[in-house]
Amino acid sequence: MKRIAILGSTGSIGKSTLKIVEAFPDRCSVATLAAGINVELAFEQARRWHPKIVSLASEEAADRLHDKLKKVGLGHAIDIAHGSPGTVKVATYPDADFVVSAIVGVAGLEATYEAVKAGKTVGVANKECLVTAGDLIVAEAHKQAKPLLPIDSEHNAIHQCLRGGRRDEVHRIWLTASGGPFLHTPRPQFANITVEQALNHPTWKMGKRITIDSATLMNKGFEVIEACRLFDMPASQVGVLVHPQSTIHSMVEFVDGSLLAQLSVTDMQLPILYALTYPERIQSDLRFPVSELRQLDFSPPDNEKFPCLRLAYEAVEAGGAKTIALNAADEVAVAAFLDGAIGFDDIPATIESVLRETPALKPESIDQVLDMDADARRRARYLIQEAGSATDRAHPAGRHK
Amino acid sequence: MKRIAILGSTGSIGKSTLKIVEAFPDRCSVATLAAGINVELAFEQARRWHPKIVSLASEEAADRLHDKLKKVGLGHAIDIAHGSPGTVKVATYPDADFVVSAIVGVAGLEATYEAVKAGKTVGVANKECLVTAGDLIVAEAHKQAKPLLPIDSEHNAIHQCLRGGRRDEVHRIWLTASGGPFLHTPRPQFANITVEQALNHPTWKMGKRITIDSATLMNKGFEVIEACRLFDMPASQVGVLVHPQSTIHSMVEFVDGSLLAQLSVTDMQLPILYALTYPERIQSDLRFPVSELRQLDFSPPDNEKFPCLRLAYEAVEAGGAKTIALNAADEVAVAAFLDGAIGFDDIPATIESVLRETPALKPESIDQVLDMDADARRRARYLIQEAGSATDRAHPAGRHK
Repeated sequence: MKRIAILGSTGSIGKSTLKIVEAFPDRCSVATLAAGINVELAFEQARRWHPKIVSLASEEAADRLHDKLKKVGLGHAIDIAHGSPGTVKVATYPDADFVVSAIVGVAGLEATYEAVKAGKTVGVANKECLVTAGDLIVAEAHKQAKPLLPIDSEHNAIHQCLRGGRRDEVHRIWLTASGGPFLHTPRPQFANITVEQALNHPTWKMGKRITIDSATLMNKGFEVIEACRLFDMPASQVGVLVHPQSTIHSMVEFVDGSLLAQLSVTDMQLPILYALTYPERIQSDLRFPVSELRQLDFSPPDNEKFPCLRLAYEAVEAGGAKTIALNAADEVAVAAFLDGAIGFDDIPATIESVLRETPALKPESIDQVLDMDADARRRARYLIQEAGSATDRAHPAGRHK
Repeated sequence: MKRIAILGSTGSIGKSTLKIVEAFPDRCSVATLAAGINVELAFEQARRWHPKIVSLASEEAADRLHDKLKKVGLGHAIDIAHGSPGTVKVATYPDADFVVSAIVGVAGLEATYEAVKAGKTVGVANKECLVTAGDLIVAEAHKQAKPLLPIDSEHNAIHQCLRGGRRDEVHRIWLTASGGPFLHTPRPQFANITVEQALNHPTWKMGKRITIDSATLMNKGFEVIEACRLFDMPASQVGVLVHPQSTIHSMVEFVDGSLLAQLSVTDMQLPILYALTYPERIQSDLRFPVSELRQLDFSPPDNEKFPCLRLAYEAVEAGGAKTIALNAADEVAVAAFLDGAIGFDDIPATIESVLRETPALKPESIDQVLDMDADARRRARYLIQEAGSATDRAHPAGRHK
């Protein structure tokens, strides 16, 4: 029986995790939950699962949840917490043995690190953990001799394929990429890509930032960085292959020339189930219709059209602060794009400028990671404002009207 | 260091095995060799590898080899044997620890069984071993607690994919099939397929019988039987998927919904290397050009066009004597087709008739396997002659002139 702490219980991964708990009540139970400000859903989850602690992002949200729980007689049964200390409490709860780290952004960083430090097995769904603090978290997991289990389709696929040989028998890891909605869009049209077009992802339904990150291939860049850290591989041994159907979730090429690939339906429940039951596999109804398989397409990624991928390789090779800046600058730039403040092409341009200004330092603590993250965000915002003012001066009507 | 006995050293698998030994002299060496009647090549191999024993099919061939070896001063260094006892001697040579079983047809059956019984690790490249005597050989390997390692691309792929989970976590095995040269030929044209057309295989260059067996999909049927026996799976859990590029060599579907697939170049050296070095993988130059991967196609097999596949499923479900008869009748029918005595469509028809007349017995020994094999061959020849006479009576000019 796995007793699970879910960081990000009201998000997509959190909800899928609870579906798994629902389906396999003899295998897993809910220990604690942490969420943002969705009080309604957190309340429903608390009532359904009776966790020992629920932590929300703000004190106000926590108070509202407490009131609602009191009304149904659960005011004393469930400990309510909030903010960063609350999330850490949820993540390190002594009776939890598996932590699902699925809080989007750097907000989940400290709690994830503390969970690893507390000797929990951590399922990593939060991209930022490994992109910004991967070296620290992986080193701590090694020290604790506890696995970090990837809960995203690509790294989970790699984890499965790696079972086919020893780590030193791996020649290369191949991440597959859907290619996003602009796979076939000619380069000259990239400057005019609209928010609506960029949000229209061909295979996965996801949040806004990750959808834009998929359109720029920055998401794949982040995954390259995650793969390097999770599987201790240099970037030169991590390749990307565009595969629009997202049926092969990733591949591992061994030194003898054999490749193993993992195929499945595109449902996040599958990697979650894998992580929760590893090293076992248990029967699920997430069947891939093999007999209906018809065509799988592949192509190399176009680095001209998608400079974000190149930037990610450069950042991970430089290490530490550069990957923190990559993530921070991207988040700011994507938000600006979604707000109409900058164009699609300006996303990589902003990131590249921020990276250029970022010194190649190595963070020694989560606090330093957060400082470097804040610095990079400031620089990115400044660059965007500067460019906006310059544009306003040149074209008083504004460039995105 | 693996000391290898090669049964079938002058055939395609035997030659590929020797290439591996050549490439990895610190990993493997040649202990003994058995071949057919290719005295020239056996002589070259003996001179190059200095095996302890060389056995050839006939006494006459063995004598010629002995004379040639005497002339180069190796008359005393190498023990020369012949016939079945010679092959068994090669297979059970005390100093050999790995036996490559690659003698085509039932000729290698006894020696392979004796090798397993003598506690050797056996690499099985010979299809007939598992199709005709699989139950006996697998039971003996279990008793000896020694692995049977498949040396053909499909079962080797499955062996690799099975590393991704426990045996009881397998939902289904998926053998891929190139589909052969008649994948897109309309059913009504099957009766007029010529020998030349049938010998034109799209992806693999192989011997004549296996090429015809690939054209009828009987080869895939044999592989279904091999998979059932090698991996202890019921036929209902072994599926076939047509995949013309032969890039994915086979797949394993696990109970949780994940599939693992193995991809590589189509070169038999790869499964041989895998078997010889298992459980390790060693660096080879058999690299698959991943970046050049473009398109993989799949479709379900057409059981109407390829009745041999259905016959194989029926035979393995009935077990024992039926799979022996399947193989024997197929070999006779394919030879008759190559001789122009019967049409392409008559191959499955002949096999089906022989199967219908075969009692569902279970052989208890290799001798019984050989008896059942001889019986089925007699029945197949009789049926073909009968049909030929009937055709001659009806059309005195003959049907295949």
